[in-house]
Amino acid sequence: MRPRPQQPAAPPSRPGAAVTGDGRGSDPTPGFVSLVGAGPGDPDLLTVQAVDRLRKADLVLYDALVAPDVVALASRAQRFCVGKRAGRRSVRQNTIIRLLVRAARRGRRVVRLKGGDPYVLGRGGEEALALRSAGIRFEVVPGLTTAVTAPALAGIPLTHRSLASGFAVVSGHDESSFRPVLSALSPGSLTVVVLMGLARRAAVAACLLDRGWPADTAAAIVCATVSPRTRAWIGTLGQLGTAPHPAADGAPGTIVIGGVVDLHAVLDETNRDAAGAAARESWSSR
Amino acid sequence: MRPRPQQPAAPPSRPGAAVTGDGRGSDPTPGFVSLVGAGPGDPDLLTVQAVDRLRKADLVLYDALVAPDVVALASRAQRFCVGKRAGRRSVRQNTIIRLLVRAARRGRRVVRLKGGDPYVLGRGGEEALALRSAGIRFEVVPGLTTAVTAPALAGIPLTHRSLASGFAVVSGHDESSFRPVLSALSPGSLTVVVLMGLARRAAVAACLLDRGWPADTAAAIVCATVSPRTRAWIGTLGQLGTAPHPAADGAPGTIVIGGVVDLHAVLDETNRDAAGAAARESWSSR
Repeated sequence: MRPRPQQPAAPPSRPGAAVTGDGRGSDPTPGFVSLVGAGPGDPDLLTVQAVDRLRKADLVLYDALVAPDVVALASRAQRFCVGKRAGRRSVRQNTIIRLLVRAARRGRRVVRLKGGDPYVLGRGGEEALALRSAGIRFEVVPGLTTAVTAPALAGIPLTHRSLASGFAVVSGHDESSFRPVLSALSPGSLTVVVLMGLARRAAVAACLLDRGWPADTAAAIVCATVSPRTRAWIGTLGQLGTAPHPAADGAPGTIVIGGVVDLHAVLDETNRDAAGAAARESWSSR
Repeated sequence: MRPRPQQPAAPPSRPGAAVTGDGRGSDPTPGFVSLVGAGPGDPDLLTVQAVDRLRKADLVLYDALVAPDVVALASRAQRFCVGKRAGRRSVRQNTIIRLLVRAARRGRRVVRLKGGDPYVLGRGGEEALALRSAGIRFEVVPGLTTAVTAPALAGIPLTHRSLASGFAVVSGHDESSFRPVLSALSPGSLTVVVLMGLARRAAVAACLLDRGWPADTAAAIVCATVSPRTRAWIGTLGQLGTAPHPAADGAPGTIVIGGVVDLHAVLDETNRDAAGAAARESWSSR
């Protein structure tokens, strides 16, 4: 859907507006933009602050990958998807910024809602700089980054004693950006996480194999846009290039490479077996 | 404080206990452990799920670095600090695990509360494996990792177009673990984040300088255990080794190295200036 940023005939009543600008009634632009991280998809994995901002928002511009249940929390807001969706072009970045600036100048409380964390491969920094140079007040509300949370929900800790004391996160969007990074990583030195790289998994695997990573290094593709529907492919670096997409609906996946992937076999079941479900039920029933 | 895991003379009333185990009254161990990430310190930056678990917990074992305001949410729980604090030894890891297992076997709802995310350099994987092998049901509730959030709150996005398309996170606790990782990173290839490495900042800087990173690469130390009291030192890689500790109280710091640090000059003010504070006030007043 293309955004239709028309304003209502009259601005909505904003009872708190009078106190905006710490009492300086002369402040002409009480609008404010919150760059909010939506986390991995489950509304229960939003931060308390993110829920607050969504509930109070007048306008929400959200990326296509943000879960509908999260967007729905902004029940009193106009809501527009500005991200790429199947068969449709995304709204251009400078159009998004123009919409944010215009709405804020009209005194609206705007949420820019992004999957994961706004500052991890989400172009949040660009939007923040643009708001700053336009003189628009804003804040960043961090979210759980998919890089950490998608593996965790599949039973893969990114670090683990004797297996990995660190990890690297790279964008798999362009080979020109991930090749220099991956080619610099000594075999097995840390856990490698590739976001937005499912379409280029063959090139990702080739980079590391060329660098000398053993073909039997454990590798996973985790799809966890909506918890608890976590879907994972588990295999080796040598198999990664031809691995099938683990989610039938073509959901975006996170690639994880390193010894910690082996922990999935032990730790993942706890998130999925009947006992775990029953136990979680016992929390929610009280 | 050493934990005193004595049980009350009579177990506390748990009205929901009868339904635990999806109605199988024969289940002898309705207890459950939640490995919960406490995020960077601000209770508003907890996930909704983390708040839920804390509010319902019978017992909370928390690390020393978890903010008091977060621990306080577990108002009906016994709460024990099991982490290192000035002048006192921490509780040993196997003691922590024994306490978790024992409490769960007694049917208690246990929260193991860790700063940041349980699976990022927090030994959460070790505790999860131990619970698994003891047959204790558990879950992981992810938290905002300090590696991403501390820089973000100081106006430093870890990735930014044309500056960094990825980042590496390493533990600075032992030189033997960070040296192989840092020595493998090509100069400027990504943003480097070092957690728990403030005491070894000279060795961290030396690793990267030896690897050929330019001495004028931007570097920062961010202390953000309790938002919004973010304190940052900003300088260069060449200065990092002798940088002063930015927080007077010796709070733990996150080291960030790379071109994205320069964004701090533009983006940080928005979190701290009077206009930003007033604008956030306008959100919280409605």
